[in-house]
Amino acid sequence: MSSASVILQLICPDRPALVSDIAGWVAANGGNIRHADHHTDAGAGLFLSRIEWDLQGFGLPREAIPVAVKALAERLGGDAQVHFSDDHPRVAILVSKQSHCLLDLLWRARSGELPMQVPLVISNHPDLEPYCADFGVPFVCVPVTTGKKAEAEATILELLDEHQVDLAVLAKYMQVLSGGFLERFSEVINIHHSFLPAFKGAQPYHRAWERGVKLIGATAHYVTEELDDGPIIEQTIATVSHRDEVEDLIRKGRDTERLALARALRLHLRRQVMVYRGRTAVFA
Amino acid sequence: MSSASVILQLICPDRPALVSDIAGWVAANGGNIRHADHHTDAGAGLFLSRIEWDLQGFGLPREAIPVAVKALAERLGGDAQVHFSDDHPRVAILVSKQSHCLLDLLWRARSGELPMQVPLVISNHPDLEPYCADFGVPFVCVPVTTGKKAEAEATILELLDEHQVDLAVLAKYMQVLSGGFLERFSEVINIHHSFLPAFKGAQPYHRAWERGVKLIGATAHYVTEELDDGPIIEQTIATVSHRDEVEDLIRKGRDTERLALARALRLHLRRQVMVYRGRTAVFA
Amino acid sequence: MSSASVILQLICPDRPALVSDIAGWVAANGGNIRHADHHTDAGAGLFLSRIEWDLQGFGLPREAIPVAVKALAERLGGDAQVHFSDDHPRVAILVSKQSHCLLDLLWRARSGELPMQVPLVISNHPDLEPYCADFGVPFVCVPVTTGKKAEAEATILELLDEHQVDLAVLAKYMQVLSGGFLERFSEVINIHHSFLPAFKGAQPYHRAWERGVKLIGATAHYVTEELDDGPIIEQTIATVSHRDEVEDLIRKGRDTERLALARALRLHLRRQVMVYRGRTAVFA
Amino acid sequence: MSSASVILQLICPDRPALVSDIAGWVAANGGNIRHADHHTDAGAGLFLSRIEWDLQGFGLPREAIPVAVKALAERLGGDAQVHFSDDHPRVAILVSKQSHCLLDLLWRARSGELPMQVPLVISNHPDLEPYCADFGVPFVCVPVTTGKKAEAEATILELLDEHQVDLAVLAKYMQVLSGGFLERFSEVINIHHSFLPAFKGAQPYHRAWERGVKLIGATAHYVTEELDDGPIIEQTIATVSHRDEVEDLIRKGRDTERLALARALRLHLRRQVMVYRGRTAVFA
Repeated sequence: MSSASVILQLICPDRPALVSDIAGWVAANGGNIRHADHHTDAGAGLFLSRIEWDLQGFGLPREAIPVAVKALAERLGGDAQVHFSDDHPRVAILVSKQSHCLLDLLWRARSGELPMQVPLVISNHPDLEPYCADFGVPFVCVPVTTGKKAEAEATILELLDEHQVDLAVLAKYMQVLSGGFLERFSEVINIHHSFLPAFKGAQPYHRAWERGVKLIGATAHYVTEELDDGPIIEQTIATVSHRDEVEDLIRKGRDTERLALARALRLHLRRQVMVYRGRTAVFA
Repeated sequence: MSSASVILQLICPDRPALVSDIAGWVAANGGNIRHADHHTDAGAGLFLSRIEWDLQGFGLPREAIPVAVKALAERLGGDAQVHFSDDHPRVAILVSKQSHCLLDLLWRARSGELPMQVPLVISNHPDLEPYCADFGVPFVCVPVTTGKKAEAEATILELLDEHQVDLAVLAKYMQVLSGGFLERFSEVINIHHSFLPAFKGAQPYHRAWERGVKLIGATAHYVTEELDDGPIIEQTIATVSHRDEVEDLIRKGRDTERLALARALRLHLRRQVMVYRGRTAVFA
Repeated sequence: MSSASVILQLICPDRPALVSDIAGWVAANGGNIRHADHHTDAGAGLFLSRIEWDLQGFGLPREAIPVAVKALAERLGGDAQVHFSDDHPRVAILVSKQSHCLLDLLWRARSGELPMQVPLVISNHPDLEPYCADFGVPFVCVPVTTGKKAEAEATILELLDEHQVDLAVLAKYMQVLSGGFLERFSEVINIHHSFLPAFKGAQPYHRAWERGVKLIGATAHYVTEELDDGPIIEQTIATVSHRDEVEDLIRKGRDTERLALARALRLHLRRQVMVYRGRTAVFA
Repeated sequence: MSSASVILQLICPDRPALVSDIAGWVAANGGNIRHADHHTDAGAGLFLSRIEWDLQGFGLPREAIPVAVKALAERLGGDAQVHFSDDHPRVAILVSKQSHCLLDLLWRARSGELPMQVPLVISNHPDLEPYCADFGVPFVCVPVTTGKKAEAEATILELLDEHQVDLAVLAKYMQVLSGGFLERFSEVINIHHSFLPAFKGAQPYHRAWERGVKLIGATAHYVTEELDDGPIIEQTIATVSHRDEVEDLIRKGRDTERLALARALRLHLRRQVMVYRGRTAVFA
């Protein structure tokens, strides 16, 4: 619909005139800014900036932009990432037996709502293969058997490498990834079926029912080594009542899970999320 | 607006024909049912019923109803409570320094939205006395000083007794009531400024900010000896973003707190809440 | 999961002892009530009741229940419907080119979340045939060309008749059904992409954008001859801002549309919806 | 808590390098930017910018800033407004008989949540005088009798002038202001008790009940001559069911009304709202 844009994400120590400095750099190179968002974390003395401008007409050729941005970041003593909106990341979806998030993501990818490629789906169970076949997406089953988790993770890492995957999405993948895995592949988004930090860990709906809560939630977050403790991108909720049994919580939860995950993934893919201090700034 | 009604709340072991049995008892006495709600907790084999019927025209005189209801409950092997909608409970509001919930409750009581009397407000600080004066409600300051908490609680218990208080509402009363207090006065509703069970205990907004959540919440619940663990009546939420500092969470939280507390209190006062197995059925 | 139940929906003039009368009738026949919900429309002097009880152990054989219920309704001067929870209605889904609601409904039907059969999907465009093929559901294209709408409707009516369809769901079927059609087939649920009664008719998202609203909505309703004016079953909303273009409203709207439609359909299929005076009672 | 800031709101024709140009102007004068938000309305070719920077340390003295900003706006061919965060506007609150919004606003003003002064409250009825007395705010009753509306409006205009009022808030003022009034005093925010554009005009809750909606709403908007058609600032909703009578809609509506109005007013007072093309950009 719209032509390609350049997206700069920059974090650096806060100091005066940063907005002017960065916007001036874009303008000096002939860039026409579409969106510019900034955030200052006063407590940490950090400045975060996300600027998006038209690639067409920009003074620097595409291949030269990353180097130029790196120089800019160095001058400001910070870190920067640059992305192009027409580069659609390669996303692997990891699942177990539940289909709701997988089907939702495949449909959103096909419809163009999620700007990504899906080179493969990985599962520890064979159940969801037919959904992948319907969408023409390769499906690989990597069983996780007792005592063989390390081998399974090694296989997954090889698959991610082989398919040049940029991001792994745990779409109800009911396995915890080890710290060793995350050291080798750290770009992972998970959907947890509770309103974190409530009900970390296993069986959150059962525990939510036991506790008698009146709202249940879902949390999409980046995965870190500590379980369910990574930076939160999006949270959604659904109302429940005493009439709802655990299976009703699970059913209602599916809707809130797939919504939280889809929104979070779209924000990530459009480079609207920046991570700092274990939390996220979401420029929506 | 509407004439008085009788409200029966009954919990008994589940068995066939209970709805017919109870509704038949009401009908046999000439009662015209306005609302009838039931819930079966299959796991516990419990049947919960709330039936409301017109007092006018009912075959039993008002003063005879509690005894008749007791006999009904005994016949069913359960427990029953009976209330009359024109009996407005005497509610003591306990506060500290924050005014938002107090003012909201006083206004809702005056407007008739909350069917209750407020014989007194108790606080451990003198700050909110002027609000009570505006509404013509007696205010008693019971300071809680280090090492003297037991004495303060004893004073409060005397006040509750003296004013024939039916229910105490902790409207941002920043003190934990002891188990001993609750043994002597157990009808207490609290508003906790988090989405329980997340952020139990002190400073939930600070911890929510630290965790980087995208939604904050408030929970109105009955108070039990274990802190923030009593049966939940109502939960509300508000959205937050990285732009919100702790003080913004506190500000947004005030709106969600007073709404959750007012809703829970109205449900309680209209006898729409039943407690069982550490949870609530809310017949709304 | 649970065994079959009998669901009675009854509307009759209000008078005393109706709850007892109806529950007594169920009990007298040995029925074990699972759910009992009632509503009195005081203004219209109407009593609505929905009672659900176990089929197993009930004193009347399944085939005798409708006749017995008819007699009950006549005695009370009202109308009654009886359904069995293991009778899964035959639902035709009508679509045009948009896939989001269709895919969602097919998936929910397969997962068992929507207790229905889908004997066919009808569309005025061929685009969505592949989705139906994936789910093994017959797809029939009935084009609607200028001046030939009556013929198309006649064809659709034949299809509904031939496939013994109980309910038609307009899942983004961008055609208005004529009064003549509805006279011959009246059981129709539609999803309208606005928060009715705002933005009746065509292009609601464009008009919502023009008006600068901050919330958009979706409305699932029974179809009546007057456009977008039938009894509302469910409404959902999504927040929007000045940053959202019309295409963003459309994208966000898809999520709220499919949720409203799926919820409404589930409520209908579980016989939790009763229509009276142009509105619905939803016993959820 | 925080020191004063300068807030610039600028609308001008879109062209390249505007962000850099404006941020550069701030930086060139030594301004330390706290917040910078921009929006491009591509359809209209308009650029909107809101920039907030520290007053302390800025190179231009406070009294020189408006002139300098005017020159900047002229250079860019646009319009600009400049405000100082420590200038608390003088806001008149207009009410009739309902107290919920008035009390809420007075409390929020006192608590500092709404950065404003309230020099007077105007009402066409005497009922709410005691609330104003409690908060020490002057109350003036200007009755509106049949055929004397023009006189009442003239009196109100005099009062607004005499008290140097910057903004009038219609907090359930059940009178329509004439076009003539708005020509002479145009800075007016209203709370309408429906989800606009649904149920414009009188008795929205009665009409919402008639229509059988499942959600009700409230809309805070700037007032224009066409009734209920001004730019929308904020909308909130509440769920309703068939159990809710009109009086329940009114009760639930009060909570959503006061929340929408308070949020909108805070956004306005913090200069986070910009009006263009009959709509608003809300930089929240």
